[in-house]
Amino acid sequence: MKVIVDAFGGDNAPLEIIRGAAQAAREYGYEILLAGREREIRETAEKNGVSLENIAVADAPGVITMEDGPKSILKEHKDCSMAEGLRRLAAGEGDAFVSAGNTGALIMGATFIVKRIRGVSRAALAPLMPTNAGVPFMLIDAGANVDCRPEMLLQFAHMGSLYMTKVLGGGRTAQVGLLNVGTEEGKGGDLQHDAYHLIRESGLRFVGNVEARDLPFHIADVIVADGFSGNVALKMMEGTADVLMGFIREIFTAGWASKLAYLLVKPGLRALKRKMDTSEYGGAPLLGVARPVIKAHGNSGAAAIKNAVRVAAEFSRAGVIEDIAAAVRSAGPETAVGE
Amino acid sequence: MKVIVDAFGGDNAPLEIIRGAAQAAREYGYEILLAGREREIRETAEKNGVSLENIAVADAPGVITMEDGPKSILKEHKDCSMAEGLRRLAAGEGDAFVSAGNTGALIMGATFIVKRIRGVSRAALAPLMPTNAGVPFMLIDAGANVDCRPEMLLQFAHMGSLYMTKVLGGGRTAQVGLLNVGTEEGKGGDLQHDAYHLIRESGLRFVGNVEARDLPFHIADVIVADGFSGNVALKMMEGTADVLMGFIREIFTAGWASKLAYLLVKPGLRALKRKMDTSEYGGAPLLGVARPVIKAHGNSGAAAIKNAVRVAAEFSRAGVIEDIAAAVRSAGPETAVGE
Repeated sequence: MKVIVDAFGGDNAPLEIIRGAAQAAREYGYEILLAGREREIRETAEKNGVSLENIAVADAPGVITMEDGPKSILKEHKDCSMAEGLRRLAAGEGDAFVSAGNTGALIMGATFIVKRIRGVSRAALAPLMPTNAGVPFMLIDAGANVDCRPEMLLQFAHMGSLYMTKVLGGGRTAQVGLLNVGTEEGKGGDLQHDAYHLIRESGLRFVGNVEARDLPFHIADVIVADGFSGNVALKMMEGTADVLMGFIREIFTAGWASKLAYLLVKPGLRALKRKMDTSEYGGAPLLGVARPVIKAHGNSGAAAIKNAVRVAAEFSRAGVIEDIAAAVRSAGPETAVGE
Repeated sequence: MKVIVDAFGGDNAPLEIIRGAAQAAREYGYEILLAGREREIRETAEKNGVSLENIAVADAPGVITMEDGPKSILKEHKDCSMAEGLRRLAAGEGDAFVSAGNTGALIMGATFIVKRIRGVSRAALAPLMPTNAGVPFMLIDAGANVDCRPEMLLQFAHMGSLYMTKVLGGGRTAQVGLLNVGTEEGKGGDLQHDAYHLIRESGLRFVGNVEARDLPFHIADVIVADGFSGNVALKMMEGTADVLMGFIREIFTAGWASKLAYLLVKPGLRALKRKMDTSEYGGAPLLGVARPVIKAHGNSGAAAIKNAVRVAAEFSRAGVIEDIAAAVRSAGPETAVGE
């Protein structure tokens, strides 16, 4: 297993990325190919005592920042670490790719450098999100496509179902829900009405419309949404959890009694933090692309990168991309959405 | 001040509604007009020792449930308590109306029985939502209109700004943000692009695009959204907060040490629950309707109803509806959106 990692993507690049990649190499025994400025990578590793055993470097002089436009990865920033990593992935020099960098650029680069699976109309960002049940759900699309047509949502449903059925294992087929403003049939706008009927007739295990309120209670394994409202759902969950965790921190630092209380419930609070921490699930697969690409959170530290590398390897091993390609081939015109 | 209350709307009707109305009558000295089956109201009050002092009853035989379609309030359920309350409001028999019942029916009934403010194209559901700053923000629209045009978002911005500027007081003008998938200009789809430019040119205090993640950190006083993504944001916040509060309950009931810890931080935890409890803000104004209508949460208990009655009275007193009417009159064609 060889995972390519963008060493210059994300808020904590390159040090935390290098650290996370090194941890993955050591713990899982994977080969790693780090994309980015070779000299800086080697100097950073040496200065911080990070071993580069089992780690090769694909030199790339440029860096794409969070402020750069998505298309710049194909033009003025085509020499960046992210583009180099994607080219190596497309050339078969690695089994999967991980980046914590600019999401729009990653979607653009994956779509045009690695290419989509034949017959897939749009790549979708599909993070795994925490629930109270201890098992995550997949939200697809969480922001790659702000404007969607019903046929795109049907394809997201197929791709998400194939991925989560593999994740669940044990012969259980993933349940699919459609994000909507109410649970009754007929809720939502034209997009939801049409997508509802397409998914219902698709042969997937469809549970119907679901409300955002029920998502963190694990109402289904796959939640299908257009990229705009999916992105709102993802970020609202993150923001609300952040605010609440902040309030809880305050409660436990208010005085000696609360500090004592903290000691008494410390393990529980740590477990809570872990439960609500999306980085535990190792970043979001970019489904629909012809090779495994994982978007790690922009603020990923070493542990999150290590998890993302593990998820990327599992993504490659599971054969989901082959499944999607086969499903699109056999599904006929209703899932083969044109440009 | 006379507030009309739908005695048969919501999960806890009629007892909790009657209790909340009675508390409001006693604490604030308002007159209350309860709409609903008179005999059942009087029997329920007597059996539970609730005084109906300062409370009149507008008899209505029917009840509209959460499962009934919105339009049924104008047809087969036009004899329901909600419709009767709205008719009394339209006839000037009260200053404001509160219902915890079927949201779709309330929007439909308010629009066609009470009517919209002249020149307002759509009524919008505009809840106040909690933040870490201790002051709420208004989310408009949170679900009344799943399909929106840019001009509608501009009107929501105007109405929300007028309301929140009154709430803030002290001569501070409310800040308005546009819910989007990123903060940069040009993010989102056509709806967001066009709304961005309309709001920027509107003379409102516009802070630009805002991401859902930043909403609970009070990034602006008014957040403008189409009703679909606004509804997703509202419910995702509720669901995430519910899951987290559930986890916290578990932590504090895990054993004797955690129960001791609970005693030590009890006031802080109670304050946290209050901070994240949307019912503290007393339900959502339905902005754009010609008279004050407040939608209380479906699961409202007596305290939430009491708060909703207070907010309804403040809504009436503040003169926001007169302000909106004047703004629409003077704003010219760009805010006067046709059907």
